[in-house]
Amino acid sequence: MLINGQCGDSIAVLDRGLQYGDGLFETIAFIHGNAPLWDRHMARLSEGCRRLALHQQDAVRLAHEARQLLHRDDASTDRQVIKIIITRGEHGSAYFPREGDATRILYTRDWPQRVQQGIALHLCRTRLATGSPLAGLKTLNRLEQVVAAAEIKNAGFQEGLLCDADGFMVEALMSNLFWLKQGVLYTPLLDRCGVSGVMRAEVIEQAEHFGMRVQEVRETPEMLDTAEAMFLTNALGLTAVGEFSGKLMDVDAVPLKIRNAIQQLLS
Amino acid sequence: MLINGQCGDSIAVLDRGLQYGDGLFETIAFIHGNAPLWDRHMARLSEGCRRLALHQQDAVRLAHEARQLLHRDDASTDRQVIKIIITRGEHGSAYFPREGDATRILYTRDWPQRVQQGIALHLCRTRLATGSPLAGLKTLNRLEQVVAAAEIKNAGFQEGLLCDADGFMVEALMSNLFWLKQGVLYTPLLDRCGVSGVMRAEVIEQAEHFGMRVQEVRETPEMLDTAEAMFLTNALGLTAVGEFSGKLMDVDAVPLKIRNAIQQLLS
Repeated sequence: MLINGQCGDSIAVLDRGLQYGDGLFETIAFIHGNAPLWDRHMARLSEGCRRLALHQQDAVRLAHEARQLLHRDDASTDRQVIKIIITRGEHGSAYFPREGDATRILYTRDWPQRVQQGIALHLCRTRLATGSPLAGLKTLNRLEQVVAAAEIKNAGFQEGLLCDADGFMVEALMSNLFWLKQGVLYTPLLDRCGVSGVMRAEVIEQAEHFGMRVQEVRETPEMLDTAEAMFLTNALGLTAVGEFSGKLMDVDAVPLKIRNAIQQLLS
Repeated sequence: MLINGQCGDSIAVLDRGLQYGDGLFETIAFIHGNAPLWDRHMARLSEGCRRLALHQQDAVRLAHEARQLLHRDDASTDRQVIKIIITRGEHGSAYFPREGDATRILYTRDWPQRVQQGIALHLCRTRLATGSPLAGLKTLNRLEQVVAAAEIKNAGFQEGLLCDADGFMVEALMSNLFWLKQGVLYTPLLDRCGVSGVMRAEVIEQAEHFGMRVQEVRETPEMLDTAEAMFLTNALGLTAVGEFSGKLMDVDAVPLKIRNAIQQLLS
């Protein structure tokens, strides 16, 4: 683990990352030492720093430090995950932020166990607060997700669909949602809450490249009753949904071109 | 600073308090070594632990550790502030929480500089997301407050009134809001977002004790146009509002009985 370029594994209690969740993070897939979505991660991080008035990060330095951490000479090193956390450090007084260098943390995480294609998706009762000034950003304020995760676990599922307080679909706990209907690819709007995923952006670009129509919509889960296919995306891949709300979904109806494109990207 | 009863000033990067803001805090006023609102702080903390499925804290142990930290033999010790932070530690995997002892942090903070009675209150453009499963709790997810604080500072104010995404009043940045109109004391409902302040509860109880009618309402800031007085409360006291939205407010119209009761409580 590197903290501001030095080996370490702890931060000050007074760091605003702990005090207020005053910071951002990125979870980045490295395949054979390269991060195919690196530029998208850096763009989101930069947008987050801009919106939170955090010091902009030097992407070259981040890449250099990530490479220092990647395991070498190991058969299991084809796929690795690096997590980057950026906090405002101790710069501020109570909620009021002050100019100053951010705290920069990088470390490797295990690549999660492969989620089977055909995952069963729980519809969460836990709702996301809506109309957030943080909408779209991957901030350190993730307690709603923790509450939803407890619900998902108790219900015996691995992933769950989250709606906002008004009942509109937003995203899954650890991924973004897409569904297919009559040749159109749909995904929820993320202008009022939710995290704007890097793989979501990649899938939208790929789909449009293949000539598909993609629509960002504000819809309730009822719209999924007539969906022909559903899939989830995050920085580590694409997963077809096999069951939702007691209904079996056709895993093979997920557009093959998109699946292949993402698989190729991560291989 | 005490961390799980031991001297220390840092926590693990992997602590969920940093990773997700997975925790709670309390900021507690000690007057001559006693905390007049202790029971209310402990009740809120307990309610938070229950709702977040965090291990319940032993209030006797917390009181014992707080006392260890209070400065002695010092003329400035009449008023001290103890902050308590409770996190889920490292118990969990990604968002999914697991059973386990919480991380318990206590430390002293400076009593903030006395805010002048007659404070000018800014009306924030920054909105709080609404419909939160965390409504009422004092969690470590406070980034909306940081964004609002930057706005308040840039506007040249010390405090600001926050509305929710639907435009209804919620609270001020660091305090709860009350206003008086035709003998009735009003304060915003906190069922959809906001922090349910310990002093807010105390003021409501005192006001009712004095025979005043108190109403929790969902109202827009326009309702303040005809308010006869406004005041803010937090764990450290009560502050009359002297100016809001270009309108001067009568500081002396804040009910004297309530002011005196709170002043006495904290003396």
